[in-house]
Amino acid sequence: MPIQVTVWNENVHEQEREAVAELYPDGIHGAIADFLGAFDEFSVRTATLQDPEHGLTESVLAETDVLVWWSHAANDAVADEVADRVVDRVHGGMGFIALHSGKNSKPFSRLMGTTCNIKFRHAGERERVWVTDPGHPIADGLPDHFEIPQTEMYGEPFDIPEPDRTVFVSWFEGGEVFRSGVCFRRGRGRLFAFRPGHELYPIFEQDEVQRVVANAVRWGAPNEGAVAEWGESDPLESIGE
Amino acid sequence: MPIQVTVWNENVHEQEREAVAELYPDGIHGAIADFLGAFDEFSVRTATLQDPEHGLTESVLAETDVLVWWSHAANDAVADEVADRVVDRVHGGMGFIALHSGKNSKPFSRLMGTTCNIKFRHAGERERVWVTDPGHPIADGLPDHFEIPQTEMYGEPFDIPEPDRTVFVSWFEGGEVFRSGVCFRRGRGRLFAFRPGHELYPIFEQDEVQRVVANAVRWGAPNEGAVAEWGESDPLESIGE
Amino acid sequence: MPIQVTVWNENVHEQEREAVAELYPDGIHGAIADFLGAFDEFSVRTATLQDPEHGLTESVLAETDVLVWWSHAANDAVADEVADRVVDRVHGGMGFIALHSGKNSKPFSRLMGTTCNIKFRHAGERERVWVTDPGHPIADGLPDHFEIPQTEMYGEPFDIPEPDRTVFVSWFEGGEVFRSGVCFRRGRGRLFAFRPGHELYPIFEQDEVQRVVANAVRWGAPNEGAVAEWGESDPLESIGE
Amino acid sequence: MPIQVTVWNENVHEQEREAVAELYPDGIHGAIADFLGAFDEFSVRTATLQDPEHGLTESVLAETDVLVWWSHAANDAVADEVADRVVDRVHGGMGFIALHSGKNSKPFSRLMGTTCNIKFRHAGERERVWVTDPGHPIADGLPDHFEIPQTEMYGEPFDIPEPDRTVFVSWFEGGEVFRSGVCFRRGRGRLFAFRPGHELYPIFEQDEVQRVVANAVRWGAPNEGAVAEWGESDPLESIGE
Repeated sequence: MPIQVTVWNENVHEQEREAVAELYPDGIHGAIADFLGAFDEFSVRTATLQDPEHGLTESVLAETDVLVWWSHAANDAVADEVADRVVDRVHGGMGFIALHSGKNSKPFSRLMGTTCNIKFRHAGERERVWVTDPGHPIADGLPDHFEIPQTEMYGEPFDIPEPDRTVFVSWFEGGEVFRSGVCFRRGRGRLFAFRPGHELYPIFEQDEVQRVVANAVRWGAPNEGAVAEWGESDPLESIGE
Repeated sequence: MPIQVTVWNENVHEQEREAVAELYPDGIHGAIADFLGAFDEFSVRTATLQDPEHGLTESVLAETDVLVWWSHAANDAVADEVADRVVDRVHGGMGFIALHSGKNSKPFSRLMGTTCNIKFRHAGERERVWVTDPGHPIADGLPDHFEIPQTEMYGEPFDIPEPDRTVFVSWFEGGEVFRSGVCFRRGRGRLFAFRPGHELYPIFEQDEVQRVVANAVRWGAPNEGAVAEWGESDPLESIGE
Repeated sequence: MPIQVTVWNENVHEQEREAVAELYPDGIHGAIADFLGAFDEFSVRTATLQDPEHGLTESVLAETDVLVWWSHAANDAVADEVADRVVDRVHGGMGFIALHSGKNSKPFSRLMGTTCNIKFRHAGERERVWVTDPGHPIADGLPDHFEIPQTEMYGEPFDIPEPDRTVFVSWFEGGEVFRSGVCFRRGRGRLFAFRPGHELYPIFEQDEVQRVVANAVRWGAPNEGAVAEWGESDPLESIGE
Repeated sequence: MPIQVTVWNENVHEQEREAVAELYPDGIHGAIADFLGAFDEFSVRTATLQDPEHGLTESVLAETDVLVWWSHAANDAVADEVADRVVDRVHGGMGFIALHSGKNSKPFSRLMGTTCNIKFRHAGERERVWVTDPGHPIADGLPDHFEIPQTEMYGEPFDIPEPDRTVFVSWFEGGEVFRSGVCFRRGRGRLFAFRPGHELYPIFEQDEVQRVVANAVRWGAPNEGAVAEWGESDPLESIGE
């Protein structure tokens, strides 16, 4: 059975800025759904901020194995109720792949418990993404490093809990570094934050970026797991000898 | 300069249940403040749910190095605004010691990003607390293990992120186990959740328990740290060669 | 293509103690190979201490995706050269599943960098294995907990590095606890230490134990990963502006 | 009572290369002992490869709280017996600060259980050390980042276990990144590997570098901890109901 993927995008820059609309005529969500859809192992749908309940109804989330989330300008526009619903579904096992500023989305930051603060700069500079954990499944099939010719810079300190695994660290032309691929678990759900993806550059057309996103979706898919029993419990051994 | 400690207690059971009032005539917060106050290295005050702003005003938190938090029945009664204020102060460096059901308090669960679910049972059973990380500062001066003669049971799975360190694991007479002492970092702040402390038993009178709480306060006190610069940043190297 | 599994056993108790020989007429390795062999997804072979090079030649290891290792009495009898070869192969991606006292084997302890010390007792007592990480793939299909009617006790402190994930914690009838299922990564290789498996009891006939071992083999199988380039490197940017 | 620090240096480059001898007339160990010795809270001695037992006798190690270790060319020249003695002492609580290629020393790599492989280049290029964990005690008093004008490059992937905390990540002029400050625990001992310190440049004269080393010594000093009882144990509860 294919992995059920929902690609969510705030879809704001595409409406407001011609350069973005030209680069991504079907929206960033459309571009991501397009390259993920080429894999038989994925069944892909999209949803955006503008949809009713942002397209993330109970039933959509119940059918979603992995949620890929792109956001930047409109993080505050996401309804609290929808954000909490996403968080609950992650606790239940749904994977969550935060792209670019998705790290500042309500669901991701609530799952982290930190500010997710960073440095940033819009200078169209070069980024070199280094693989720091070459054995990690999200790095499958990648070279030692790859370059993004032009991008927004993100710089440390990145205010997140210490990641379970740090898969990528980026070098920037202007002199900064950033932990660009970091893994977490919350409840049964796997989380991966991937830095690249600024809306003004054709980053999601790059082979390596597509490969990372596809790898992350595979890695983030839920497994069966064990039964978890919570609440008031009878003793299993006699008490009070 | 002494470590500034604020001991916070919801102070509800003490008002509603005679047995608790007899056991802790000055409240659980009073008992904790009492044994912490015996150390010259601590300067201790208390605050409760019933105080204006629950006693956790901006100025009190600004002067608090470590917040010791006991709660159980009234976790939902804490104002969201106060909970967020505590979270912000933890990000800034304040230590947070969650005692007993303080793990389900708004500040702690927001810092975790998980449900903090557990099993539980009120049967006055025996708990044996094992030190799993004998080199950890919170275990300073402890024996290999210690017993709590009668307590409420907490059982796994404890739905928390994988702890940075697991200092204690408890054995229960009725057949369960629990990670009773777990450490985290969020922003600059250190967090420690310590399971023992049910209101019906004289647990805070036990030497080992007092030692753990005092050790945790020492461990949780903030250090100077480095400067962190966030936001838009000028390049440090020339761009665009 | 099936996962290539090598089940290694020191195979000493089976030769020296009649009760063990009766319980495991084909050796513990035979029993494990038998239940793993029932899965089409695994291709299983066995090797023992008594084989030339302990059955772990360069070519056997090169063809092994996951090495399942049972040892107890003869940890010191393993040749240093073979132990180092196993360690190298783990660095390259081979999974290593340490059963019972396999935690004290030369390969495992060299990969840990700690003493792996424990408490122990031979009293045929009851163990209850609790799932502490119900979302972990090694817990797939398990109930909330399961019991081993009679076993050797292992007790904390277990002197290992803080695990990446703690999947199981055991309760013992005699009053101790133990982190019974713990995960690590070293280089590209995944490691899992699973406590149960004393030679005097039919533990490897239990459904839950067989399930854990099979799950661990699936989890431990290597993935492709990224290219890693080490050694002297030419600059990618001009130096000395 | 002051923290007992032993600064160990292989002291080989100083003998063989005039430029190093001029830069560090008392050896790198002498330079480090000099700036650490300025703090009343430290009591500092030195030891080198050329001393009997490399200066790391049982009695010296027993009196050492934190061992600062610089090595590069002669890692293989350290006697196995001395390396094991250092490892044992770390398990018992001694801090170990690995400077520069000390990450490839026998004690450090045995404590890691990995190859500690890296990329490297000798081009006298600029390094910018970024603080990634501004709340960590090893970063106390540091700015957001600092520069080393000329150094050897180390590049990722750095083949270590996932660190407990990553305090520094470096940017290099030639295009690489490196996790330059990483923390681990093994047994009761704290370990910190700090990348800077190539012998050809006056790196240990820099204020920030001296501050990091002094902070690491404070952080690495052992605490009392709990009693740990290992070996055969009597039951604490009755068995066999």
